[in-house]
Amino acid sequence: MSGDANRTANDTSAAQAPASAAGAATPRSVGDERPGRFMAAEMAEQPDVLRRILAEGAPRIRTVAEQIAVRRPRFVLLTARGTSDNAALYAKYLFEVRLGKPCGLTSMSTTTAYGARPDLRDCLVITVSQSGGSPDLVASTRAAREAGAITLAVTNNAESALAGVSEFHIDVLAGPERALPATKTYTAELLALYLFVEDLRAGGGRPGLRVPGDLVAGDLAAKALPDLAASVLARHDEVRALAARYRFAERMVLTSRGYGYPTAKEAALKLMETSYIPALSYSGADLLHGPLAMVDNISPVIAIVTDGRGGQALRPVLERLRDRGADLVVIGSHAEVGRAAAGFALPTDGVAEELQPILEILPLQRLAYEVTLARGQDPDAPRSLAKVTETR
Amino acid sequence: MSGDANRTANDTSAAQAPASAAGAATPRSVGDERPGRFMAAEMAEQPDVLRRILAEGAPRIRTVAEQIAVRRPRFVLLTARGTSDNAALYAKYLFEVRLGKPCGLTSMSTTTAYGARPDLRDCLVITVSQSGGSPDLVASTRAAREAGAITLAVTNNAESALAGVSEFHIDVLAGPERALPATKTYTAELLALYLFVEDLRAGGGRPGLRVPGDLVAGDLAAKALPDLAASVLARHDEVRALAARYRFAERMVLTSRGYGYPTAKEAALKLMETSYIPALSYSGADLLHGPLAMVDNISPVIAIVTDGRGGQALRPVLERLRDRGADLVVIGSHAEVGRAAAGFALPTDGVAEELQPILEILPLQRLAYEVTLARGQDPDAPRSLAKVTETR
Repeated sequence: MSGDANRTANDTSAAQAPASAAGAATPRSVGDERPGRFMAAEMAEQPDVLRRILAEGAPRIRTVAEQIAVRRPRFVLLTARGTSDNAALYAKYLFEVRLGKPCGLTSMSTTTAYGARPDLRDCLVITVSQSGGSPDLVASTRAAREAGAITLAVTNNAESALAGVSEFHIDVLAGPERALPATKTYTAELLALYLFVEDLRAGGGRPGLRVPGDLVAGDLAAKALPDLAASVLARHDEVRALAARYRFAERMVLTSRGYGYPTAKEAALKLMETSYIPALSYSGADLLHGPLAMVDNISPVIAIVTDGRGGQALRPVLERLRDRGADLVVIGSHAEVGRAAAGFALPTDGVAEELQPILEILPLQRLAYEVTLARGQDPDAPRSLAKVTETR
Repeated sequence: MSGDANRTANDTSAAQAPASAAGAATPRSVGDERPGRFMAAEMAEQPDVLRRILAEGAPRIRTVAEQIAVRRPRFVLLTARGTSDNAALYAKYLFEVRLGKPCGLTSMSTTTAYGARPDLRDCLVITVSQSGGSPDLVASTRAAREAGAITLAVTNNAESALAGVSEFHIDVLAGPERALPATKTYTAELLALYLFVEDLRAGGGRPGLRVPGDLVAGDLAAKALPDLAASVLARHDEVRALAARYRFAERMVLTSRGYGYPTAKEAALKLMETSYIPALSYSGADLLHGPLAMVDNISPVIAIVTDGRGGQALRPVLERLRDRGADLVVIGSHAEVGRAAAGFALPTDGVAEELQPILEILPLQRLAYEVTLARGQDPDAPRSLAKVTETR
């Protein structure tokens, strides 16, 4: 990789107008030049993207899942970077909990720097990448296929090199992403991976018996998501009020357990890459193992409390944080928000725990955007953030 | 877990004097009450611990490796928390690169919170824990064994519950650890895991042919480590000079690639839990994916540049950081330190790349200690850090 090998989104988008006027929903709009307009527009597109995946993407995902189920993979490896790595972590929980398959996140450098060639027979290797263009992801996927793996690419670009080298491909159908901080492709990756795992569950062992086009459990559970996402996104003002809290923060800690942990990591990444606030994310259990020393009055804490077993497992950590007088903000159910200093209540009633991450990240994306604006910076123009990272 | 379920090291160590007077080597000594005396003593013990593992631990590790090699595990899962999780990550690189086994780090909550019961036949599940006492590690290891896994505990306590529930056990022989920030148990875990993987390499497929007590490649490569570690530890003054640089730092970024990446993560944890400086660690490739926006003049960067392929893969990232005027300090070979603003040169000549992490962490442990003293805090008494985390 050389410095100029990194294309920035600005290189490709300068001549293009935003595809949607959704950014105009914010009262801060002052015309086409307003800071954060690309990020705002893409956050607002998320309900439509989720609808598109359920309507147009789901049948293709089901076909891919059926073809892979026949091959009976025993182990799953996920490869990704940045935001997509957080989507991969979400999928890891799904594979382990919903499917009972041991699962790992790969360290790409073992293949690309050290030339490792593990025996990958019976392994499903899933590479998640918005652009599908990073040379190291392409190289490691090619190597995995040569080593006997079933390879699946989950990308936002069906024409990408990554889709080309993988045996299977799922298109997350999010449309062109122009903002440097990824938002809509993250929730699109989560939903596509969720449907894929649920289809594997349904089709595993009896793929021939499935009626094509038949509704499966995953689709039914997910069908309320687009409207719920729209209702969450409409609550800009609540997020802006929360953002005021962090305008002068010198650091932040995000924590969760279980399905909400990828949300904590993705929110930390979003905050850092837009506002440059050092945002540290820990599973609740790891937080008690050391970094808790950093909390107290100096680091505000945002806890993502999934309504379900992950949230229950986090409860002792929340008690400990409250005992220490931490500034605790909760993203979760009404009841959990009520026990914290402040928060954002999500519509969790009737939403399966494993689907809640698709809603949880929405106010946190917006928080990153609002904190960045409050600090006088432009969420669309993080310093030196590259859209396609061309490390090898 | 309840708040009072967490025993602190102070509970058990108040009546005991430090086992070694090694802390007296620091000119800052002012008697038994000096801050950081437990941490200083345990850092100084490391050459002796490494010697003990090579002399007394290696034969037992070899026997365990031979028994496990016969079972021909196809996949490896590692489970750990905190410092031991960084040792587990180091082992993950070894398994993938040296042994060609696909390997993952487990998310404990999938077992303990969600009750996942994956099919773990043909899986080697390794749980790494200093104390061997965390209930969630014990529970997840027991569940793994019931699910058909070969289970191996790597702990510093042969009498621990974790050692008891695991089919195999490796004792890292580091002696009682009294300081809350783990130092000697980290390097002990690294060396024990290194010897285990090298023995699996040697014994895989032909365990019956090995001459008991025969020297294997791993032992030979590692035998210089204790003296090299002593020579690195003797250079207190150089580390103290570096520490002055970070006395007023509000954040720090640590980066590496390959075998050095666990060092970056462990150094960040050590800095945070002693000095409370928010220290963020990224693989070099991930750093370019977003967090680089945070660097520039506001975040000093420490790069761990392993002499070998990992360091080569990091080079473009270092160039990028230098181009941006980042305050770059390098831990690595003389040549790499010479190209940075400052650094600590390690004796890398003739040391296999995969063994360098055992040396790399030494100046960084000391850096955490010195920065903490410089900020007027006590490295032995981090606020609310628990020695055994009793999350479930």
